[in-house]
Amino acid sequence: MSETVFPRGVFCAALTPLDADLNPNHAAFAAHCRHLLAEGCTGIALLGTTGEANSFSGDERRALLEAALQAGISPDQLLPGTGVAALTETVALTRHALSLGVTTVVMLPPFYYKGVSEDGIVAAYAEIVERIGDERLRVVLYHIPQVAGVPLPHGAIARLRERYPGTFVGIKDSAGDLAHMTALVERFPGFAVLAGADPLMLPLLKAGGAGAITATTNLVARDLRFVFDHWADPAQAAAVEAAQARVVAARERASRFAQMASLKALVAERTGDPGWRRMRPPLVPLSETERAALLTPAPDEARRAS
Amino acid sequence: MSETVFPRGVFCAALTPLDADLNPNHAAFAAHCRHLLAEGCTGIALLGTTGEANSFSGDERRALLEAALQAGISPDQLLPGTGVAALTETVALTRHALSLGVTTVVMLPPFYYKGVSEDGIVAAYAEIVERIGDERLRVVLYHIPQVAGVPLPHGAIARLRERYPGTFVGIKDSAGDLAHMTALVERFPGFAVLAGADPLMLPLLKAGGAGAITATTNLVARDLRFVFDHWADPAQAAAVEAAQARVVAARERASRFAQMASLKALVAERTGDPGWRRMRPPLVPLSETERAALLTPAPDEARRAS
Repeated sequence: MSETVFPRGVFCAALTPLDADLNPNHAAFAAHCRHLLAEGCTGIALLGTTGEANSFSGDERRALLEAALQAGISPDQLLPGTGVAALTETVALTRHALSLGVTTVVMLPPFYYKGVSEDGIVAAYAEIVERIGDERLRVVLYHIPQVAGVPLPHGAIARLRERYPGTFVGIKDSAGDLAHMTALVERFPGFAVLAGADPLMLPLLKAGGAGAITATTNLVARDLRFVFDHWADPAQAAAVEAAQARVVAARERASRFAQMASLKALVAERTGDPGWRRMRPPLVPLSETERAALLTPAPDEARRAS
Repeated sequence: MSETVFPRGVFCAALTPLDADLNPNHAAFAAHCRHLLAEGCTGIALLGTTGEANSFSGDERRALLEAALQAGISPDQLLPGTGVAALTETVALTRHALSLGVTTVVMLPPFYYKGVSEDGIVAAYAEIVERIGDERLRVVLYHIPQVAGVPLPHGAIARLRERYPGTFVGIKDSAGDLAHMTALVERFPGFAVLAGADPLMLPLLKAGGAGAITATTNLVARDLRFVFDHWADPAQAAAVEAAQARVVAARERASRFAQMASLKALVAERTGDPGWRRMRPPLVPLSETERAALLTPAPDEARRAS
């Protein structure tokens, strides 16, 4: 993979902590961002699916991005999600990011209508880029058909890359299918393909991928960064294997119950702040039974720890 | 069915005409609303799926509702869609409608996350109602799982009806399954069940339903209103049958190609305004080939017309 592919690295699909009124907690979010960067994240992909972004209004999203910047996070380290159902709102959110010097965004396709044509997807992204009209803009496409309900077909990516080669720089592929990711790497040289599932970053890097934007990074950023830095170094093979095993285990642990609620429950444990467990409806926290099961190590984990 | 069930009648899921910049055309929309009411619509369910509402920003939605009111449409005749992915934005849109005297809204569940729990759906609607805190509010729930990706389970409706009996007054059921609609009528006495598909209004009325909120009404409001007014009158049986046949034929015609693009193409023909054909991405107008086929009567239609 060319070193010029951008963005490259380990990006955290950051959780969004909420206050008692279920509104974003800016101070706790800024602290979480600082923690993630200290753990080795290349950057923070805030306001994505894991960050409950589509449960927040445009104003709430803008305020969260501003809070991260005011907390001292560099604009270069922030990759906000700005793609929503209405293209005019996507334009407004993206322009706002650009106005703050945040030039790389992760952009869902418009996701309300299902079964839309390739022409329609291309027209939507083209209209967004044209309306924004800012050469600095770098868009990471976001393929997560199991949630958005709208896949990004290869044909649409090809047409957007051809029409706006400097703008559509990469894709976050969260469909969980390694073959789909490697097909993207092969078809689109110079395009940054980022794994949306932590365990798949390692095989994707071996196939020429650019890294990962993932949820479990909220817990194991240090391990994922170690894998990213050392996967090709034979002298580190055993350490890479061990780090990858911890990433896989963390992902599996967070997937026994609802993933985002589990991640929040585990961050609440790490920080000692039970407020971290809150979620905005329609998502809900784990039940107490689920949380107790999550926090009780499985027999093999207990054995390893002893 | 009790006469006190509200809302009752024939409501048009109104199309939204666009100007050359693909922004809502307020003058053309107001004219369309007046036409629909003159044709017999009980009211206008603007800013729904057919109205491309989720392709518009909050500001665009607010401006369209204000334009309809400024054009002289009564607040009682307007049922705007206000349910979006973010509950805070749903609250803002609904409060705005209430501030204008528009008290009945059609509300999708939050539709980004899929597979959400019944608890999560109830929590979302409850949070919305509590935050709005306005006794005047009347919510028509909106069940359209094939587009929203989030069905409204009967258990959630039961809990919301129990907790806020005067608020959750009805449902637009657009799943296209008559058995599902009649099950709602049977389970929830006093609840207004409105068909989301034109041909199903007649059988739903016979089963105790309250009417319809439909897309083909953009073309055949007069016929659907005739069916609504006279379906139970034996003296009008033949005329009701003929009107219902025209409704079914119009719906079938508009379903040969993409439905909303077809409806817009047909309104463009009626009004002589080709601008009516525009759609905002990710939806796109019919191709010229499709439009030509749509406008060429099928052999049996030509025979009837001759």
